[in-house]
Amino acid sequence: MERFNWECKSSPLPLRAQVWIVGNRLELFMSQIIEPRVLKGFRDILPDQQHERQRVVRILEGTVESYGFVSIDTPILEYADVLLGKGGGETDKQVYRFADQGGRDVAMRFDLTVPFARFMAAHRHEIALPFRRYHVGKAFRGENPQRGRYREFMQCDFDIVGTDAVAADLEIVLLINSVFEAMGVGKVTIHVSHRGLFNALLSMLSVEDRIVDVLRTVDKLRKIGKEKVRSILTDLIGTEATDAVVRFITSTGDNATILSSLRSLVPAGTEHVDRLQRILEIAEAVDASERIRIDPAITRGLDYYTGIVFETFLDDLPEIGSVCSGGRYDNLASLYSKERMPGVGASVGMDRLMAALEELGVAGDHGSGADTLIVCLDEELAGTYQRIAKELRACGLRTEVYPEARKLAQQFAFAERRGIPTAVICGADEASAGKVNVREIATRESRDGLTVSESARVISELGGNGSA
Amino acid sequence: MERFNWECKSSPLPLRAQVWIVGNRLELFMSQIIEPRVLKGFRDILPDQQHERQRVVRILEGTVESYGFVSIDTPILEYADVLLGKGGGETDKQVYRFADQGGRDVAMRFDLTVPFARFMAAHRHEIALPFRRYHVGKAFRGENPQRGRYREFMQCDFDIVGTDAVAADLEIVLLINSVFEAMGVGKVTIHVSHRGLFNALLSMLSVEDRIVDVLRTVDKLRKIGKEKVRSILTDLIGTEATDAVVRFITSTGDNATILSSLRSLVPAGTEHVDRLQRILEIAEAVDASERIRIDPAITRGLDYYTGIVFETFLDDLPEIGSVCSGGRYDNLASLYSKERMPGVGASVGMDRLMAALEELGVAGDHGSGADTLIVCLDEELAGTYQRIAKELRACGLRTEVYPEARKLAQQFAFAERRGIPTAVICGADEASAGKVNVREIATRESRDGLTVSESARVISELGGNGSA
Repeated sequence: MERFNWECKSSPLPLRAQVWIVGNRLELFMSQIIEPRVLKGFRDILPDQQHERQRVVRILEGTVESYGFVSIDTPILEYADVLLGKGGGETDKQVYRFADQGGRDVAMRFDLTVPFARFMAAHRHEIALPFRRYHVGKAFRGENPQRGRYREFMQCDFDIVGTDAVAADLEIVLLINSVFEAMGVGKVTIHVSHRGLFNALLSMLSVEDRIVDVLRTVDKLRKIGKEKVRSILTDLIGTEATDAVVRFITSTGDNATILSSLRSLVPAGTEHVDRLQRILEIAEAVDASERIRIDPAITRGLDYYTGIVFETFLDDLPEIGSVCSGGRYDNLASLYSKERMPGVGASVGMDRLMAALEELGVAGDHGSGADTLIVCLDEELAGTYQRIAKELRACGLRTEVYPEARKLAQQFAFAERRGIPTAVICGADEASAGKVNVREIATRESRDGLTVSESARVISELGGNGSA
Repeated sequence: MERFNWECKSSPLPLRAQVWIVGNRLELFMSQIIEPRVLKGFRDILPDQQHERQRVVRILEGTVESYGFVSIDTPILEYADVLLGKGGGETDKQVYRFADQGGRDVAMRFDLTVPFARFMAAHRHEIALPFRRYHVGKAFRGENPQRGRYREFMQCDFDIVGTDAVAADLEIVLLINSVFEAMGVGKVTIHVSHRGLFNALLSMLSVEDRIVDVLRTVDKLRKIGKEKVRSILTDLIGTEATDAVVRFITSTGDNATILSSLRSLVPAGTEHVDRLQRILEIAEAVDASERIRIDPAITRGLDYYTGIVFETFLDDLPEIGSVCSGGRYDNLASLYSKERMPGVGASVGMDRLMAALEELGVAGDHGSGADTLIVCLDEELAGTYQRIAKELRACGLRTEVYPEARKLAQQFAFAERRGIPTAVICGADEASAGKVNVREIATRESRDGLTVSESARVISELGGNGSA
C-alpha cells in the first residue's frame, strides 16, 4: 500500500487529496484541511520565547531552593467541589468546569493556592512543618483576554505553612527581593501592610460589615486615584469613616513616620504595627530594609488574608504593576480540614514578569540556537560528522548536525536564521587529515585546519550561546 | 471583625464551625468539610518525588539541548476538531472534551504529537527547517488507570522535522542512547525496524488491506507470544501469508544476518533494508551500533509511521517494556496543511522512566531537603540567622531557617525528617563572638566555634544535598 499526497497549491478550497494504492485499486480521499487555530486567550510558545521562559524558571527555582523551598505538583484537573467549595462564588463563571467521561463534576485549576490547600489537608501527616513549598505550573481562567493576560497562564507560588512566626513573614519578603535580584531587574520595592490593622480600623469605625466592598475599593487606589476612592467610600460608609480610611491609606513619610501615624490612627492595632516594625528590624540586619516600604494602601482584594499583605514593584518599571503579591493567612486548608494551618506566601505571574524583563532589556541575551552547526558537505561523511559532534558535545557545546548535503549557502543561512554563531566545515580532505574549519557566520571569517578540540575552543570564543 | 474557628475534634460529622464577631453581633457559620480527594488516575507529587522528577527532566533537557533541540510549548486546551480531526476515532472516548463558557467545543491534549503538528502548520514560516524540537509536558487520557498508568501523565517528545535524511533517523537513535547514558541506567538496546519494509511484505502477500489489524496483532508479540499471534493472524490473512509474516517478525541472528534474511524475504523492500544498513554504518562510526538491534517484530501500532520505527529497552530491566518509542513519518501536519512535512521523532513516558530508575536503584541519591538548617534558639536573633543564611546561600548552600524558638530536640527531629544533614546552631554568646556550631544530624556530633565561612566548608563536607 502506498500513499500519495496531491498538493494542489492553487486550490482556493482548503482541501487535501490523497491517492492510496491499495493492492490493484486506487482510492482517492478528499478531506478538508483544518485551520490550525488556537483558542482565544491561549497561545503557542515559540523556541526563543520558551528558551527565555526556561531561563527565568530556572533562576526562580534556584533562588527559592536556596531558601530551602521544595517543589510539589498537583493535578490540573480536580473535582469541582474540591476546587470551588460547596457553593462557589464569583470566580465560578471563569472556571473551566465540565462532566468527565464518568459523569464526575470536574474543573481545571484556576490558581495554585486552592490545590495547595487541598494538598496540605491530604498529606498533612507525610509532611514536616513548617513546610516551605513552591509550585510552578499552569492555571486556567476563562476571563476576557487582555494585553498580557491569558486564559492559560503560568504562575510560581511559594509559601511557608505551619508557622505564625514573624520570621516567616520576613523570609518571604527577603526571598522576593532575592528572586528579583537574581533576575537582574534592578531594585524592587516591596509595599507591605497588615490586614489585621485594616480590620482593626474598620472595627473602630464600626463599618466592618462593609469590609468586602471597602477592600475592593481601596484596592483600586492606584488605578482610579484618591478622589474617586473617596467618593465611592463615602457612599459605602459615610463621610466620617471615609475620612479616617483615606487618612489611613494615604499616610506618607518614611517607614518610621508611617508606623507612628498608624499607631495613632488605630490604637487597637498596636500589635500589628509592632509586627511590621519587627519585620523592618530583621530586614535591617541583612541590609534589606530599604527594599521594604510600609504602604497602608495595600490590602489585596481577597478576604483570605489575615496578616501582612504585600505587592512588589520594580523601581525601573513601576507602571507594569505588582510583579509578586501575597500575604499571611490564618488558615490555609479550612475548607478541607479541622486542623488550623497558618502560613504566608507569594505568587509571581510569569507572563507579567517576562513582559517586564523584555521591557527592561534584561531578558536573556541569547536565542535558543545551538552553539555550533556541523554542515553537511557529503552525506557519505555522516559518521565523521557524528563523531565530531560527539566530541564537541563532550566539551559542553550544543552541537547541531545538518542532516543532508544542501548547498553551503543554504546551510549557512539556516545557521544565521537559527542564531547559531558558528559552523564547523569538514569535507573529505579535512576528514582524512582529522581536521575541521570553523566559520563565524556573522563575519564569514574562517579558521582552517583545526583539530576538533582546537575547534571547540574557537567555537566557545566566538560566542557559543552557552551550554544547556 | 474577628473570626474564631471552633475545632471540635471529637465530632463524628465532618463539620467546621466558625464564630465571627461582627460589630456587636456574633455570627455562627457551620459548613461541611470537603474531603480533599483527587480524581482517579490523577495524583499529587510530593517533594522528594518532584525533586527526582525535576532532576530527570533537567538531564533530559540538557541532553536533547546538547544535540541542538529547542523547546516549545502549546496550550493544554485546544479546539476539539483541531485535536481530533473532523471525525475522531477510537481515542475519542478517552479524550477530555467539553463545551467551554463560550460554547466552543474544546478538548484537553491527549499527546504532544497532534499539538506539534498543529504548531508546525501554524508557524511554518517562522521556523527554519530542519527543525529539532522537544516538548516536556502533561497530557490527559481518561483511560482506565493501571499500575504506572495515569490519566494525567507527563511526556517528553523530541522530533526532527523537515528532512527525509537518513542522518536524522540515526541522530534520533543516537540521542536516545545519549539520554539513557546520561540517566545512568546502564546499557540500552534500541530495537529498530522499518514500516516500509513491513508494508512491502504485506503488499507482496496481497494482504495489505488488513494492515491495521495485522499491525495491531504483531504489536502484541512480546505480550501474547508467537503462537497466539500466529493463530490470530491465520484467521485474518490465512495460513500461507501468516507463515511469511511470522517468519519475517521472528527473524533471528546478528544484525547482518537479519538484514540478509529480510532482503530475501521481501525482495521489493531492498531500499528500506539499505536504509537500515546505512543507519548501522553511521552508528558504527560513533561506537553505537551495538546499541541497535534490527528487530522486524517492531511495528508500532499506529498507521502514522512510514519509515523506521523503534522501541528502547533497558538491558538491566527489559521487562518494564519500551522506555522510548517512535519512528519516521512522511507527513506530520497533513491534517492542517497542504505542505508535506516529513520527520522522525521519539517519545519518553516520564512515569515509566521514573519507575525504572527507582527499580534499578539509580534514582537521585538525595531527597528534597536543604543542605543545612539554621535552628532558632532565640527569636531576638532572627536578624543574625538571616545574615548567616545569606552568607551560606552565597556559598551555594541551600539553607533553611527555622522560624521560631521551639525545643532544640524538636528542631533536630524536623531536620532529620526533612533529610537535612546538618544544623547550624547560634545562641547569644556565639552571635556576639561571630561564631556558629555545626551539628551533624545523623551522628549528633558537633563542630563548635566556627566562622560562617568555615561552617560552609564543614556543611559541604558533611554531605550537603547538592546545590540547586
